[in-house]
Amino acid sequence: MEKIRVGILGYGNLGRGVEMAITQNPDMELVGVFTRRNPEDLQIATEGVPVRSAADLDAGVDGIDVLILCGGSATDLPKMTPAYAGKYNVVDSFDNHANIPAHFAAVDAAAGEGGKLALISCGWDPGLFSLNRMMGNCFLPDGTDYTFWGKGVSQGHSDAIRRIPGVADAKQYTIPVDAAIEAVRAGEDPELTTRQKHLRECWVVLEEGADADAVREAIVTMPNYFEPYDTTVNFISQEELDRDHAAMPHGGFVMRSGKSACGNRFLIEYALKLDSNPQFTALVLVAYARAVARLAQEGQKGARTVFDVAPGYLSPRTADDLRSNFL
Amino acid sequence: MEKIRVGILGYGNLGRGVEMAITQNPDMELVGVFTRRNPEDLQIATEGVPVRSAADLDAGVDGIDVLILCGGSATDLPKMTPAYAGKYNVVDSFDNHANIPAHFAAVDAAAGEGGKLALISCGWDPGLFSLNRMMGNCFLPDGTDYTFWGKGVSQGHSDAIRRIPGVADAKQYTIPVDAAIEAVRAGEDPELTTRQKHLRECWVVLEEGADADAVREAIVTMPNYFEPYDTTVNFISQEELDRDHAAMPHGGFVMRSGKSACGNRFLIEYALKLDSNPQFTALVLVAYARAVARLAQEGQKGARTVFDVAPGYLSPRTADDLRSNFL
Repeated sequence: MEKIRVGILGYGNLGRGVEMAITQNPDMELVGVFTRRNPEDLQIATEGVPVRSAADLDAGVDGIDVLILCGGSATDLPKMTPAYAGKYNVVDSFDNHANIPAHFAAVDAAAGEGGKLALISCGWDPGLFSLNRMMGNCFLPDGTDYTFWGKGVSQGHSDAIRRIPGVADAKQYTIPVDAAIEAVRAGEDPELTTRQKHLRECWVVLEEGADADAVREAIVTMPNYFEPYDTTVNFISQEELDRDHAAMPHGGFVMRSGKSACGNRFLIEYALKLDSNPQFTALVLVAYARAVARLAQEGQKGARTVFDVAPGYLSPRTADDLRSNFL
Repeated sequence: MEKIRVGILGYGNLGRGVEMAITQNPDMELVGVFTRRNPEDLQIATEGVPVRSAADLDAGVDGIDVLILCGGSATDLPKMTPAYAGKYNVVDSFDNHANIPAHFAAVDAAAGEGGKLALISCGWDPGLFSLNRMMGNCFLPDGTDYTFWGKGVSQGHSDAIRRIPGVADAKQYTIPVDAAIEAVRAGEDPELTTRQKHLRECWVVLEEGADADAVREAIVTMPNYFEPYDTTVNFISQEELDRDHAAMPHGGFVMRSGKSACGNRFLIEYALKLDSNPQFTALVLVAYARAVARLAQEGQKGARTVFDVAPGYLSPRTADDLRSNFL
């Protein structure tokens, strides 16, 4: 069987994760890394794969079955995905939940017009967590949803701290509150406030001469980001931050607690524990890229989400094989 | 929108569970319960729904969008599903893993010939556990699978005890070994023997004059069923068994532990905790019956499994709604 030819646009943590994930999927091959930087400045891990300018993609590149878009959700993907969905089958990890309907509409129009297939908002949240939230509601119509995140690094919250005057660098961990998770597991259907669900733990490097108390106060009182939470602030050196907080772990729990019409209780729990958030997201993107390549080959076009993909398409195995070995 | 009209064949624990589950899904309605017993002997919970003979189904009944087959896997479903898949869209919970390929082939032939759609082996295992095993392998190609069952009542093991001379009644609980689950969660990728994964706990009512030691010995040495496990046997009265062990709880854990190409570790865990095994199975069957009705309306025919159903079909909500509220 011919391999699925994958292109990567964007070579940050996620792009490098996708490159690595492809090496674990022998039915797929990396055919090009595209960058908006100077291609000559980029050293990629895979030998023999060309690094090319994103401008080449605009002009049109042959031989790409799926292009995985590894840009950020804030400014890159809202333009990037509609721009490329008309020319290539694409997968993105757009994660701005509130803007998903608008993003979907823009991508659907572009992909439909170009006769291509586009899967948006793939990864673990949105993505696998979304699937479990949605399916939990189908199996337990009378129930309550809970999503807990962490322990993990929140890029957005870390950035928010770094923007405070006097802060040289920072990492922020989102931590689910054990007592809340245990109450859900115990079938108590708790109504949980924001503060009862997650803690925020900050590791901050001060600029020379900065006022630690003022920085701490600026963090813990920051509306939306930190004020609604119990937040701890720890000051450390840049060396300590680099040594102890360089990893990007994440994860969390999706829980659906519900009952049958006669009152029997059920709990569905889906949990992820990830040493590296971008590397796991990349592994999910690559499995869905396989599905996109296969569905496109069947003639599907337009935008899709994880809700639209039959799970069997994610696997390199045949349907017979899946029924014999996994059902 | 018109409701999805559901028929139930078989009115044991599962059939009653399906009847109850339909009341939690307002887009569906029960249009008939079919039985191989004398219909006049059957009192169902829903008012105004006819109880009819299974023979009517053979002759042909109009107005059923999906027929949910609530027979047993040992002897009922191998005949029942192929027999009805040619005349009705059907869903079954066939759970004899080794015989799934043969069952699928027989049902696929019948449904294809009749132009109907059939979903086999639906429920939680096979079913939701299968989905998680399969998808875990797609996201973490370099990893190890673990399935733990329980704490829950195993019907097959309870039956095996009841067949021992001197036993009046019995219930058997399958219990996962906590230490094994914790080793998997800790990322140790343990190689676990049968004995290290599950315990078996038996509650036995003796016939008058039976030899307790002989019964205990017959249980713990029974090949395949009990010999490979650490098994505890407790003797109690019929009253105690009826009072304390009438429920049918079950559940378990599907775990996929794996790593990225550079060695970062990931754990995916899916867990179910169910007060009633048949009632949860019924809720899953009903959600998949919705998918079958919709896919059949799109013109699909033949046999399918949970691997073939895009998750969005399980929900009564529109695709727009799902993207806005669950993605």
